[in-house]
Amino acid sequence: MTTRADCEALDASDPLAMIRDLFTLPDGVIYLDGNSLGALPKHVPERMREVVEEQWGVDRIRSWNVHRWIDLPYRVGDRIGALIGAEPGSVVAADTTSINVYKAVDAARRLRPDRRAIVTDTSNFPTDVYVMRGIADASGLELKLVDPSAVLESINETVAVVALTEVDYRTGRRHDMAAITAAAHDAGAVVVWDLAHSVGAFPVGVADAGADFAVGCGYKYLNGGPGAPAFIYVAPRHQSSFRNPITGWFGHAAPFEFSLEFVPAEGIARARVGTPHVLGLVALDAALDVFDGLGLDVVRAKSLALTDLFMDLVEEWAGDIEVATPKEHERRGSQVSLRHDHAFPMVQALIARGVVGDFRIPDIARFGFAPLYVRYVDVWDAAVAIREVVASGEWRDPRFAARSTVT
Amino acid sequence: MTTRADCEALDASDPLAMIRDLFTLPDGVIYLDGNSLGALPKHVPERMREVVEEQWGVDRIRSWNVHRWIDLPYRVGDRIGALIGAEPGSVVAADTTSINVYKAVDAARRLRPDRRAIVTDTSNFPTDVYVMRGIADASGLELKLVDPSAVLESINETVAVVALTEVDYRTGRRHDMAAITAAAHDAGAVVVWDLAHSVGAFPVGVADAGADFAVGCGYKYLNGGPGAPAFIYVAPRHQSSFRNPITGWFGHAAPFEFSLEFVPAEGIARARVGTPHVLGLVALDAALDVFDGLGLDVVRAKSLALTDLFMDLVEEWAGDIEVATPKEHERRGSQVSLRHDHAFPMVQALIARGVVGDFRIPDIARFGFAPLYVRYVDVWDAAVAIREVVASGEWRDPRFAARSTVT
Repeated sequence: MTTRADCEALDASDPLAMIRDLFTLPDGVIYLDGNSLGALPKHVPERMREVVEEQWGVDRIRSWNVHRWIDLPYRVGDRIGALIGAEPGSVVAADTTSINVYKAVDAARRLRPDRRAIVTDTSNFPTDVYVMRGIADASGLELKLVDPSAVLESINETVAVVALTEVDYRTGRRHDMAAITAAAHDAGAVVVWDLAHSVGAFPVGVADAGADFAVGCGYKYLNGGPGAPAFIYVAPRHQSSFRNPITGWFGHAAPFEFSLEFVPAEGIARARVGTPHVLGLVALDAALDVFDGLGLDVVRAKSLALTDLFMDLVEEWAGDIEVATPKEHERRGSQVSLRHDHAFPMVQALIARGVVGDFRIPDIARFGFAPLYVRYVDVWDAAVAIREVVASGEWRDPRFAARSTVT
Repeated sequence: MTTRADCEALDASDPLAMIRDLFTLPDGVIYLDGNSLGALPKHVPERMREVVEEQWGVDRIRSWNVHRWIDLPYRVGDRIGALIGAEPGSVVAADTTSINVYKAVDAARRLRPDRRAIVTDTSNFPTDVYVMRGIADASGLELKLVDPSAVLESINETVAVVALTEVDYRTGRRHDMAAITAAAHDAGAVVVWDLAHSVGAFPVGVADAGADFAVGCGYKYLNGGPGAPAFIYVAPRHQSSFRNPITGWFGHAAPFEFSLEFVPAEGIARARVGTPHVLGLVALDAALDVFDGLGLDVVRAKSLALTDLFMDLVEEWAGDIEVATPKEHERRGSQVSLRHDHAFPMVQALIARGVVGDFRIPDIARFGFAPLYVRYVDVWDAAVAIREVVASGEWRDPRFAARSTVT
C-alpha cells in the first residue's frame, strides 16, 4: 500500500531530483506530455539570447567559424549518439524525423535491390508509414503493414527493409530491438529504427543491436524545443555505400568548393542535405547539457518505477479504465496509455485540473513520464485526479468535448 | 563626380533610412554580406525570448494551439508570398532550400513523364545542381547543364523541367524570369525558380511570370536568422496534382487523425513534410515585420542606386579589378561581384578593416547591398577601403592567406 508520503520519500531520495531543478516547471501543473514536447531546461533561454543577440546580431556571418555553427550538426549528433549507444561519427542532427526516415529507408532499400518488400507495422507512427508508402510506390516495392505481434514472422527473404518505431506512440509498447534486428539480418534484410520515443528516456544500444540505420526526434525526451532538429544514425559499415536520395551541398565532400559535380562526403556527412537550422540546433545542444554525466540506467530505473506506480494506482482507483501499456518492463517505453471510450474529454478535464497528458485516436489517454523532471508525487497526484475525474463524471462537461487541431 | 558628402545627402533623403534603424548594426562594421546572412532586426530577440521562455517554457504543448504554432508555416509562407507576387495560399515556409528544390523538381518532372531532360545552368547554386543530378540519376532523365547564356536555346520538346536560380550567387547576374518561363511553357516544359538571392531584395512576380514552382531562402535578404526555414511556392493550378516525393504527416489531409493511409492534403500543405521548426519560424516571422508596408519598388530603386554607385567607384578607383556583375539594371540582383586573382586575401584584408563581404571560388569578391540597412556612405567607405587595400598591397599579408571552412 503506497501513500502520498511514500511518494514524497521516494522523491527525497531520488538521485535525479537535482536534475529536475534544471528545468522550468511552472507551479500548478503536472506535465505528463514530455513525450510530445519536452520541458524547457532553465539555461536554454540564455543560450538562445547569446546565439541571437551576440552571434547572429554582432558576429553575424563570422559565427559559422568563430562560434562553430558549422560543426553543430556533428557535435549535437555525437551527443545524441552517446545516448543511443552509437559509434562516434555515426549520428548527425538535421532536418525532421520524417525526412530522415525518407533518407534512411530509401538508402536501405537500395542496399537490397533484388528484394521486393518493406516491412513495417501498424503501431508505427503514421508519418513513417506514409513516407515508406511513398518510397514503395516510387520504387515498385510492396509495403507490408503487419500487426506489431507479427513482425518476426513477416520477415523473410523477399524483404529488403524492416523499418519500425521501437516504442509505440499510442500504447508505449516497446519492441525487442536486438531480436528483431537479428532476425532481419538472418533473413538478409536491412533494419531502420525510429527512436522518437526512446532517445533520452532509457538506454538504447543501436551498435550493440547491430542496427543498420536509425532516426529520432529532438523535441521529446531530449527537450530540444518545439520542432527541434531530428537526427539520423548510419552504422559505420554502411557509411561508404549510403546513398542519400536528397543530394544537397552539405552532403558533398567539399561543399565550399562549389563544384558542379556531386561527390558524396565520407562518413555521416553524407546523410546531410542543406544549411543547418542553427537556432534549433543551439537550443537542442544546450538542452543536451542536462544529460551530461547522467547514467541512463538511473533514468530507466526511475522511469519504470514511475510507470509501475502509475499503472498500479490507476488500476486500483479507476477499475473501468484499461491500461494499454504492457506490464513487463522490457516491453515498455516511458509512457502509460489508458484506454477509455471517453478518453478525449477525460484528457481535457485533466488538463483543466492541471494534469497535462494528451489524447490519441481513437481511445487513448497518454501520459508521458519524463524521468528527468517528473516526480513520484506527480504520479500520485495525477492518479488522484484521474480517480476524481472518473468518479465525478466531470469529463461529461460540454466544454471538454470540442476537439482542437492539435491535442 | 560623387563625393562622400553627396552620399550623406542621399542617406539623409533615403525613404528607407528609418528601416535601417530597425536593425542591430554594430559600430565599425560595414556589413555587405546580407546576401549570405541577413542582419538581425532589433525586435527579434524579444520575440525569441517570448517563444522560448513563455510559449515553450510555460504553455508548452498548448502553444501549438494558443500561440498558433500550428499555423506558422502558412502564415510565414503567405508573408513571403506577398514579397514574390504569389497568390495567397501558394507558399509554405518549411525545411531547407535544398529539400524544397528536391520536392519541386521531382514533382515537376512527374508532370511530364513522357520527356527525358532537366535543364539547368552552370551559374546555378551547386546544391540545386546536386539535387537535380540525384533526381535525374534516380529517374533516368538527362541533366542538361548549360551555360547561362544558352538556357533559351537549350529548351525544346524533350525537356520536362527547366530549373534555374534567378540571380547568380557568384556574379549577381539576373535571369529574365518571365521570358524564360514563357519559352519553357511554349516548349511544354515546367519551370522551377530558386529565388534565394531575389526574395526581399527586389519585387518578384512569380504569378505574373507564370512560374510553376519556386523555392527560396529565409536567411539572406529576409533576415530570418542562421539556417532559417526555407520556402516553396506551388502555383495554384498545380496544387491538386503536386506529388511530393516525401510523403510526411504534415502533407497529409488530416495529420491528427493518425490514419495509416496517406491522403495528400489539398493546397500548399501538400508541399510539407514533418513537424515545423518552430524556433526558426518564429525568428523568420518576426524578421518579416520589417517588410510590413514597405514598397519593394522603393527597395529596388535603392538597391540599383547603391550597386550603380559601388560599380562606378570601384571602376574609377581600382581599375585593374573587373566588375563581374552586369551593368544593365534588369540583369542585376542586389550584389556586386568583383573578379580578382587574389580575391580571397583581398576579402580577408577588407574584413580586417571592417568591410564584410565574402569570397566565392575561384576569383570572386562578393558584396551584397541589402537595401534595408546599407547606406550610401557605406558604399563610399567600402569602395575607399578597396582602393586602399589594392593600392597598399596589404592583402599580401600572410595572415590573409589562410582559407577557413566557411567564408
